[in-house]
Amino acid sequence: MQRFVNHPDLIVDDMLKGYVKAHGDTVKLSDRNDRVVKRIQAPVEGKVGIVTGGGSGHEPAFLGYVGEGLADAAAIGEVFASPPAQSFFDAIVEADSGQGVACLFGNYAGDNMNVKMAVQLAEDEGITVKYVTATDDIASSPPETREKRHGIAGGLFMWKAGGARAAMGGSLDEVVAAAQKAADNTRSICVGLGSCTIPAAGSPNFTIEEGKMEFGIGHHGEPGIRVQPLGTADEIAAEMTGAILRDFAFEGSENLAVLLSGLGATPLMELYVLYDKVAELLTGQGHRIDRTFIGNYVTSLDMNGASLTIVRLDEELKVLLDYPGQCPAVKY
Amino acid sequence: MQRFVNHPDLIVDDMLKGYVKAHGDTVKLSDRNDRVVKRIQAPVEGKVGIVTGGGSGHEPAFLGYVGEGLADAAAIGEVFASPPAQSFFDAIVEADSGQGVACLFGNYAGDNMNVKMAVQLAEDEGITVKYVTATDDIASSPPETREKRHGIAGGLFMWKAGGARAAMGGSLDEVVAAAQKAADNTRSICVGLGSCTIPAAGSPNFTIEEGKMEFGIGHHGEPGIRVQPLGTADEIAAEMTGAILRDFAFEGSENLAVLLSGLGATPLMELYVLYDKVAELLTGQGHRIDRTFIGNYVTSLDMNGASLTIVRLDEELKVLLDYPGQCPAVKY
Repeated sequence: MQRFVNHPDLIVDDMLKGYVKAHGDTVKLSDRNDRVVKRIQAPVEGKVGIVTGGGSGHEPAFLGYVGEGLADAAAIGEVFASPPAQSFFDAIVEADSGQGVACLFGNYAGDNMNVKMAVQLAEDEGITVKYVTATDDIASSPPETREKRHGIAGGLFMWKAGGARAAMGGSLDEVVAAAQKAADNTRSICVGLGSCTIPAAGSPNFTIEEGKMEFGIGHHGEPGIRVQPLGTADEIAAEMTGAILRDFAFEGSENLAVLLSGLGATPLMELYVLYDKVAELLTGQGHRIDRTFIGNYVTSLDMNGASLTIVRLDEELKVLLDYPGQCPAVKY
Repeated sequence: MQRFVNHPDLIVDDMLKGYVKAHGDTVKLSDRNDRVVKRIQAPVEGKVGIVTGGGSGHEPAFLGYVGEGLADAAAIGEVFASPPAQSFFDAIVEADSGQGVACLFGNYAGDNMNVKMAVQLAEDEGITVKYVTATDDIASSPPETREKRHGIAGGLFMWKAGGARAAMGGSLDEVVAAAQKAADNTRSICVGLGSCTIPAAGSPNFTIEEGKMEFGIGHHGEPGIRVQPLGTADEIAAEMTGAILRDFAFEGSENLAVLLSGLGATPLMELYVLYDKVAELLTGQGHRIDRTFIGNYVTSLDMNGASLTIVRLDEELKVLLDYPGQCPAVKY
């Protein structure tokens, strides 16, 4: 395994130590729990708290989205594993200023279970918590069971919408409504060209043969919709864009945000090659691209691949996306 | 070759098309030359122009550093190949508002030759051009011949210092002096854990055996100082930090900026693991880390590896680094 690592079992701790040293002007580890990253200022008096969290290996998610106008605290799990309920609970406590907390996370079984337990623990302490899950991965369940879909890179827009609404002084219900609107209007699809290696396992998590690609692969190597011959960038971009547009089934022209995220080992150059075709197709169908994000926003260790996310914007979502924010992960 | 590409020979054109679509609010292609990316506002009246450029495959360098408070135009070469003199010349013309142009680029034979020819062409047109080269790669030549060293990720600080001084209204000589000061006080070292593949070649550019690493490797796979057994992250971080500190030979405590850049296929998680040890060693020796940058700032296609850059700051460099800037590549 050709990686920068000390003991594979300690990689999350080592990362967190480096992370809070690198961004000590913005974040620190919770005194309650060294698997919780919190804004230095949290809890922010009078503001609804925003909590996120999930397994490690998706950096800059989730910890990179803790910052001004975004999350107040994040629960950090082991690689590709949900944080325990206690970590979500501690993140909630760190974020709560008495106005309640919105927990905005990706829809995976472990995260769901642990967040629900944490909510119960928090309610016992008199903290009101509501939650919204990102369900943007259209490959993970058919449209009839959209509520079962996993959250991938599209979570970005949920965090941003909820975080901005909270920073603007919104109530817990308003924050949850904003995050839910973003989640409901976001669709993603992933393509894998090569596997990733979980450090503690030391060998690739799955295999993609040379000359093949996996369309619809999940962010932990969950099987995609199909394995197929590797296409050209234009073909892949068209297939990804088409799949999302079919799922949206827009009736007219829409204002959109587009995010192309590398999965960890994909050069930025190639994301721009993909984007060229994505943008051509979307604008060719009469849509308008208002916001574009290209880079490694939500990754899967060293997986070779990319995710495409499309968001249908309305005036409220545009305002929320434009609201100033500051966090180590992302330029908004 | 498991990559997102149409025809490998067209990857730079495809990238550029996507790039200007994605960031059309900031940049566009020059009408004179479709291998020149320019700020929409360039040339900026009354401001010294800033030009950069180099081979493709290092994204977000060089094109990503065209923006407000940074470069006005960048000449874009083929993958790992200098732009021709004509492209540097056209970038200079696009950047010049009559106050002269500073060309800030990495010290490679091809870039040097082409910039010098471009400067001659520009002088013939009555445009004053001065240039500064980044020479931060300590592995590329010994201290006695520091002027022969190549520029790698440390170019970031040269662009920022020169770009900020220009934005603050500095004269051409002041801009060049600021960029030169940044370049003179910047040192980098690279470690490679795995090769990269030039798309038009289709097979890896060089080989690093499993269990080995190449200390001091260059950004195009230039041979490093030595091939050695792969160490732990802490060992590698200590070796990188030590090499730079020996080269600097500081006499006392210094204020530093630190940049850890992935080379394209390195997960962000691992950069933070490395940073933890780098920061421990620097602060343990009495230095103060004022600014930290972690991410993919200057890459080498899909190379697995990382570069460490350390900058000795004085009050002027701190002010220049803090000057607001806005470009697609980087959060300052």
